[in-house]
Amino acid sequence: MSSMVRAETRSDFTYNLDIPTRWGDNDMLGHLNNVVYYRFFEAVVVKFMTDEFKLNWRSDTENAQAVESLCRFHRPLSFPDLITAGLRVGRIGTSSITFELALFGPGQETAAATGHVVEVLVNVESAKSTPIDQTRRALLAKFTRPQPA
Amino acid sequence: MSSMVRAETRSDFTYNLDIPTRWGDNDMLGHLNNVVYYRFFEAVVVKFMTDEFKLNWRSDTENAQAVESLCRFHRPLSFPDLITAGLRVGRIGTSSITFELALFGPGQETAAATGHVVEVLVNVESAKSTPIDQTRRALLAKFTRPQPA
Amino acid sequence: MSSMVRAETRSDFTYNLDIPTRWGDNDMLGHLNNVVYYRFFEAVVVKFMTDEFKLNWRSDTENAQAVESLCRFHRPLSFPDLITAGLRVGRIGTSSITFELALFGPGQETAAATGHVVEVLVNVESAKSTPIDQTRRALLAKFTRPQPA
Amino acid sequence: MSSMVRAETRSDFTYNLDIPTRWGDNDMLGHLNNVVYYRFFEAVVVKFMTDEFKLNWRSDTENAQAVESLCRFHRPLSFPDLITAGLRVGRIGTSSITFELALFGPGQETAAATGHVVEVLVNVESAKSTPIDQTRRALLAKFTRPQPA
Repeated sequence: MSSMVRAETRSDFTYNLDIPTRWGDNDMLGHLNNVVYYRFFEAVVVKFMTDEFKLNWRSDTENAQAVESLCRFHRPLSFPDLITAGLRVGRIGTSSITFELALFGPGQETAAATGHVVEVLVNVESAKSTPIDQTRRALLAKFTRPQPA
Repeated sequence: MSSMVRAETRSDFTYNLDIPTRWGDNDMLGHLNNVVYYRFFEAVVVKFMTDEFKLNWRSDTENAQAVESLCRFHRPLSFPDLITAGLRVGRIGTSSITFELALFGPGQETAAATGHVVEVLVNVESAKSTPIDQTRRALLAKFTRPQPA
Repeated sequence: MSSMVRAETRSDFTYNLDIPTRWGDNDMLGHLNNVVYYRFFEAVVVKFMTDEFKLNWRSDTENAQAVESLCRFHRPLSFPDLITAGLRVGRIGTSSITFELALFGPGQETAAATGHVVEVLVNVESAKSTPIDQTRRALLAKFTRPQPA
Repeated sequence: MSSMVRAETRSDFTYNLDIPTRWGDNDMLGHLNNVVYYRFFEAVVVKFMTDEFKLNWRSDTENAQAVESLCRFHRPLSFPDLITAGLRVGRIGTSSITFELALFGPGQETAAATGHVVEVLVNVESAKSTPIDQTRRALLAKFTRPQPA
């Protein structure tokens, strides 16, 4: 994640999800509670894994498990703002995927928060990690960091 | 945080908080949702900052802000288990404190999850970081990693 | 609330809000947790109070406080469905408003849940209820139950 | 629930659960968010249903579903207070149980909030309500409102 810096912008991400905030997302300091940032990271990762990676969370044979997550909080975000979560695929391991993530407030070009979630593909029966096949590796490769023109 | 490894045990932490789980902490996979781990990290950090560091969260002059958090998920935890959150003080910067953290299930000697939260002491009026004074540095030093006998 | 029956349909409400569900809204039974229904009631009430009633939640002079809420659960709802919350104004008291509410799943014509929230307008300084003025009473009257043609 | 009045006291309940509050339970108004009251009602009902009623939430044959809940908010509660949830059994129907509930802050003799949750015993396979047997009816009867001496 050494490549994830504060100056991350919207165009550095390849997949996005708009997330409406809820009243209860703010804590008593009047801003989005830090824990909620992970709720939003989860939202964009689940959406990507479901819609693009075609993971069925209720599958009997395979699932994905988070093994690590991190968030750096650069600027506060607040209800009632609409937040945009940006995702790109970072490192693709044998059975793991590192999603590099960012959150943007309305009209913000640079990220209010950046971070990552590492997911591991798991065989449900054995509860062990299972390799990501070539078709999915090709799919993931399409969502890595955009190359400069 | 390179010193934070999977084999962290209860005796590696200097401050603890027991946290009862709630029904809604489990997600549809039947285990504590990953986001909830940060809720528990927050609980022990807030407790420490209030009771030991003597921070008043409603103070007009100083506050603490999380600038980074991380969690590694080693083993699942589940409602209705009582979770123990362990905390020790890691790096003490000019105005920042790195809390090294772990979560333990009932009877677990090694951590089910490990991570950290970095807090920065902030002057409320200027919204800028403010140095941690010597009295508090001495207090924090008491909660660093226990030395082997 | 005796008028709130299971057969409530979308056209029985005068104000609506679409609410995307989040992964963590489901509980371990695989459906939206019952508590989350109140989160959605809150969302549409807060939106109405902010956008239509023109309440400023950070105001120093007046605020609104919920004094009662109720929900009847007719059919399960689940992530990842987009939920529509319907609101209409029921009884308008001297300083209270009863919001009659319902939640609809995608494509559902009859409500999956119905209920109400009673809000009281409060003077912040005295912490006592304060009358709703004529301008706002007229506004509220526009959102009562639609009359049959 | 007409019998549930503001003057409910701790001795009016037959089953109790102490619930530590969490930082995120407060909303930006600085008090427990109204939705969280239902989280606490859920906690005491789940505890009672598990420990006393001997319901196994992961059972393949029977489960309990909330069909209605209500809460009246009398006085604010706040983190970091320890809350006591009181429960007693109200009406026992063929397959339904009405739990009469209250929340108390530290040292409070009269309830800060009162309400109820109606649960229906359900056959998982048919998804229909199923009668509560005599053994359980006898158990429930032990937790009804205490009689005056």
